[in-house]
Amino acid sequence: MLRLVFLGNAAAMPTPTSNTSSFALKAGSTFLFDCCEGAQQQMMKYQISYAKVKCIFVSHLHADHFLGILGLTQTLNMIGRQEELLIYGPVGTKQFFGDLFSLKQLRLNFPLKIIDIPKAKKKIYEDKLIRVDAFLVKHNAPALGFVIEEQPINKFYEDKARGMGIRGRLFSEIQEKGEITINGKKIKLEDVTFLKYGKKIIYSGDSLPTPAVVKYSKDADLLIHDSTFSDAHKATAKEKFHSTAKECAVMAKKANVKKLVLTHFSNRYEDLEPLRKEAQAVFSATEIAKPGLEILVG
Amino acid sequence: MLRLVFLGNAAAMPTPTSNTSSFALKAGSTFLFDCCEGAQQQMMKYQISYAKVKCIFVSHLHADHFLGILGLTQTLNMIGRQEELLIYGPVGTKQFFGDLFSLKQLRLNFPLKIIDIPKAKKKIYEDKLIRVDAFLVKHNAPALGFVIEEQPINKFYEDKARGMGIRGRLFSEIQEKGEITINGKKIKLEDVTFLKYGKKIIYSGDSLPTPAVVKYSKDADLLIHDSTFSDAHKATAKEKFHSTAKECAVMAKKANVKKLVLTHFSNRYEDLEPLRKEAQAVFSATEIAKPGLEILVG
Repeated sequence: MLRLVFLGNAAAMPTPTSNTSSFALKAGSTFLFDCCEGAQQQMMKYQISYAKVKCIFVSHLHADHFLGILGLTQTLNMIGRQEELLIYGPVGTKQFFGDLFSLKQLRLNFPLKIIDIPKAKKKIYEDKLIRVDAFLVKHNAPALGFVIEEQPINKFYEDKARGMGIRGRLFSEIQEKGEITINGKKIKLEDVTFLKYGKKIIYSGDSLPTPAVVKYSKDADLLIHDSTFSDAHKATAKEKFHSTAKECAVMAKKANVKKLVLTHFSNRYEDLEPLRKEAQAVFSATEIAKPGLEILVG
Repeated sequence: MLRLVFLGNAAAMPTPTSNTSSFALKAGSTFLFDCCEGAQQQMMKYQISYAKVKCIFVSHLHADHFLGILGLTQTLNMIGRQEELLIYGPVGTKQFFGDLFSLKQLRLNFPLKIIDIPKAKKKIYEDKLIRVDAFLVKHNAPALGFVIEEQPINKFYEDKARGMGIRGRLFSEIQEKGEITINGKKIKLEDVTFLKYGKKIIYSGDSLPTPAVVKYSKDADLLIHDSTFSDAHKATAKEKFHSTAKECAVMAKKANVKKLVLTHFSNRYEDLEPLRKEAQAVFSATEIAKPGLEILVG
């Protein structure tokens, strides 16, 4: 089960009612996808443990996507963080945060590991529960999209396994060892199990519509996409390297995703309902990101 | 008339319901005294024009007092700011913000003037409506307190002025020129006017109790003071270079101020009423800073 909580939905600058675009993922640890100014306070509000943030995935180095890292890290200093914090981002991330945290007033009392992702790469992060891939998107700065997947798990073909003599604790044993021998016959784990793939979420970061998003989102459970503009401002969207609500919906439909969440809205739209409707005309399972919106996947 | 709006009241880190300690002063332009993470959003919420911020007075270089400068300046970039922004702070301020804004990802599109204040100094800032003095306080880093005063205005001794022949537009003329001649007799402005002093506000920044605060607050209209702890945690307050609610009240009483506002509360206090009561037992005109609290002075 993946629990997502949106911390904000605004593009470029906050509004009186929303921080800039970013969301937290709870899957054992806490993971942040972009980190808006005030992210730590949003996490406090929505009861997401900021102390348990393990990785921050920064889609690109525009301030609305990373400023919250400063406040969060200073608070982690204060609560005595010892554990390493991972920051993944596009080319330039290591240099930038390296320079930033070398300033005396922002120094850290815990280790920081910063990883530049210059091109599409599988498994930039992996643990027992999830893995994260990165891919390149089209923005006016080096920018990444992310694929979050639950780790696949081995499921038994029950009848086949029992037919081959697997009983009781042998089910655990074959999973631990990879193979066991019953009555002199070697049985491999893959003979009696299949991989059950977990849930898949895609986050576009800031981007023009791109085939990469459609490709990586194929049959995904959730696509979270930059929807800065309405299709009425399509030319502006193109000029500023963002997408429109309709364009998001077209990609969601092509990719056959189960659900689309629009985010990163220009502050010109006080009412976001028209953007939802615009997308829903193409792809009905569309939702609007709002601060505090929680989505359970799985 | 000075309009103050508190942006937050929390010490060190935000809480789910408050940003860290800082306030905005409206007096023609907007002035910030400390600048919490999320200050720009708080200003949007409380309808204080962030576009009109002229100066930011940073009490000291701990992150909870300056982080909001980053988001604010990036937004000012986006809305096309051209006007110079002034930042005043203790020794090290110029170096720190100079280094910070030399980072490519945080660059500014408008001029920034950063002024270090190494010791107590009168009129660090002055315009037609207000002037600001700085003084040293006692914290575990170089730290400033600030005195905000409305500029004094010339008020006429009406009867005396009329008795000397001043009528109609001569009232304006003598103010503009400093002296006029009526029937061959030279009259100086100071012969017919007295200086009426404006309202005075003192902000302690973060500090142990110090005689400097009492001295600069003498007969002031408002004292805003670090009240991180209750007197029950007096030893901790001393160790961490902060003040207790009671200590603030004792200083307010000694200085004969009209009103005391306590701020910068440790997040150990969910309920701030006991701190208010503790102070009120010594000095009744005590109020608790809260995000959005507006105080009109004058």
